[in-house]
Amino acid sequence: MGIQLTTELCQAFNIRYPIFLAGMAGIPGVKLAAAVSNAGGLGTLGAAYMTPEAIRKAVHEMRELTQAPFGVNLFSTRLTDDNTRVDEAQRELNKIRDQLGIAQALEGGVSTPNHFAEQFAVLLEERVPVISTAFGLLPESCLQQAKAAGIRIVTMVTTVKEAMLAEQAGCDAIVAQGSEAGGHRGTFDISEHPMGANIGAMALIPQIVDRVRIPVVAAGGIMDGRGLVAALALGAQGVQMGTRFLTALESGAHEAYKDALLNSTEESTVITKAFSGRPARGIVNAFIEHWHDSGVEPLPFPTQNTITRDIRNAAAEQSNAAYMSLWAGQGTRMLTNRQKAEEILAEIVGQANAILG
Amino acid sequence: MGIQLTTELCQAFNIRYPIFLAGMAGIPGVKLAAAVSNAGGLGTLGAAYMTPEAIRKAVHEMRELTQAPFGVNLFSTRLTDDNTRVDEAQRELNKIRDQLGIAQALEGGVSTPNHFAEQFAVLLEERVPVISTAFGLLPESCLQQAKAAGIRIVTMVTTVKEAMLAEQAGCDAIVAQGSEAGGHRGTFDISEHPMGANIGAMALIPQIVDRVRIPVVAAGGIMDGRGLVAALALGAQGVQMGTRFLTALESGAHEAYKDALLNSTEESTVITKAFSGRPARGIVNAFIEHWHDSGVEPLPFPTQNTITRDIRNAAAEQSNAAYMSLWAGQGTRMLTNRQKAEEILAEIVGQANAILG
Repeated sequence: MGIQLTTELCQAFNIRYPIFLAGMAGIPGVKLAAAVSNAGGLGTLGAAYMTPEAIRKAVHEMRELTQAPFGVNLFSTRLTDDNTRVDEAQRELNKIRDQLGIAQALEGGVSTPNHFAEQFAVLLEERVPVISTAFGLLPESCLQQAKAAGIRIVTMVTTVKEAMLAEQAGCDAIVAQGSEAGGHRGTFDISEHPMGANIGAMALIPQIVDRVRIPVVAAGGIMDGRGLVAALALGAQGVQMGTRFLTALESGAHEAYKDALLNSTEESTVITKAFSGRPARGIVNAFIEHWHDSGVEPLPFPTQNTITRDIRNAAAEQSNAAYMSLWAGQGTRMLTNRQKAEEILAEIVGQANAILG
Repeated sequence: MGIQLTTELCQAFNIRYPIFLAGMAGIPGVKLAAAVSNAGGLGTLGAAYMTPEAIRKAVHEMRELTQAPFGVNLFSTRLTDDNTRVDEAQRELNKIRDQLGIAQALEGGVSTPNHFAEQFAVLLEERVPVISTAFGLLPESCLQQAKAAGIRIVTMVTTVKEAMLAEQAGCDAIVAQGSEAGGHRGTFDISEHPMGANIGAMALIPQIVDRVRIPVVAAGGIMDGRGLVAALALGAQGVQMGTRFLTALESGAHEAYKDALLNSTEESTVITKAFSGRPARGIVNAFIEHWHDSGVEPLPFPTQNTITRDIRNAAAEQSNAAYMSLWAGQGTRMLTNRQKAEEILAEIVGQANAILG
């Protein structure tokens, strides 16, 4: 039969190439997502941390920049703050605030706003082409509304069990996230897997493909045409790439973050809960080391994320990568610098075609 | 150009298919290794824990069973016992010994015999076709003797840096071990990576291929023809498979171990030092849970391995998988039961050819 680059996924999502941009929350990404969509992939806005108003604005901007399909990514998980140990955590973070010269945290708990219903409502009103989620399935009522509106639904999974749940719920495709992937682990229930279910893509993809009929999009450590062909050989119908596009010309990632990515190797990353309370893969830096050395258990998501935000923001303002979250996958030696997204896609497809001969 | 199953690796190692059997120490493996070699792969004896006499006997048996090339695998690492906390560790293990109804450990340190020089001398005398090592390079003098004797040298690596060291040392090929792999992590220096360098194969293989010129053999989570084609797409010239062959008809693995493998999923394994003092991936069982819950830090390799041996042996005699080391990779849903090694190889190659069309 042979491996074909134009898969059913391309038809189902109306895209030229079976390449999704990962939704990367916290990184300004309209230009990058639009560029990926214009180049024939599926650009994705990482909207999880955006207000509903900001999402609407970004979707409008997307539509000015591209006629092609695109996705919007949200976190689908309960967002209840757990402030039982917040003062202990803040004491530790205040040492870092001292180093950055920013204000100490006040005593007492935090309250993370939960915008999910409004975020979703905007996506539904705007009839965005694709909604993707991490950390869990869309709530059933949302999923039905979205499907009724003709919106394609994608869920990120990290195990066979999660993949089967996503198929049963009616998702149009799943992203199977290997342990190599940068950023948050998509694992639904981290009480079961405290540091995420971390199955390497080489093992995860075929085991999922064997048990679901919807298209599987492979993620984790895929950086070029070799990774694309490998994913297709394993039975995936496409790939999702985040890290590769972080250093693209259109990427909104901080320059200090891009430098850290370009100077990293396959040995540079760890999976940590220090930034957000959920396990995520990033380049080891002073923040992670400080937190791990403290011995303080991170607060659960989203509370840890909320209490570390001022530090990450201040570090970004100071261009100090030591205290920013430097999400990265394990393939960073394959990064290229300041390539246009269009060139990256063309290079990946060209290399894949050359391998397929 | 297209992907070819017959690679330079096949020529260099005089094998029909670019498929190595992993050297699996502690599992009786002459029949399995001979069957893999006879079927066109490279069978490997896991000889690390064998006495020099036992190795010589096994090599002679191999030569009676096959005319084809085969490899013998050793651990290349310093073997100095560290008994500073041995009584603390034995106290914990004595609780398990009670449960198994076996004798308590005597007080005082252990002394692990270091057979490496004699093991290597046998392989040199016997002119085995291939010597492969885990945990590090062959010592330089050994490497030169082996090469002078026409023996091919293979080293397992887990990072780009290790791969470059292996190439510089003059190895004929490297096995790039992804984090998915079962059994011991091949990482050279575990003071640098206490739980091993755990890079998923999807990211590790191409990054190594980009930096060495010797053939790269991909390992980790590869279970069938899909994994073989994926590895070749990533730039490897072959694959090494261990887990897939553990449930083969010729496998010497304990029946209780085989049952545990066949009942496991991609979520079943962890990387633990509990059995040997070196990080290794295996199926979570009561032994691992007991040890982790104890909070006692495992003694360094080989001391932890030596003090847990009576427990593992007793558990095997009692067919009690709860206290055996159940090394396994992350792809165990793809296992088949009691297939002949020859059928496994034919199935892998047939599937790979079908994918390549």
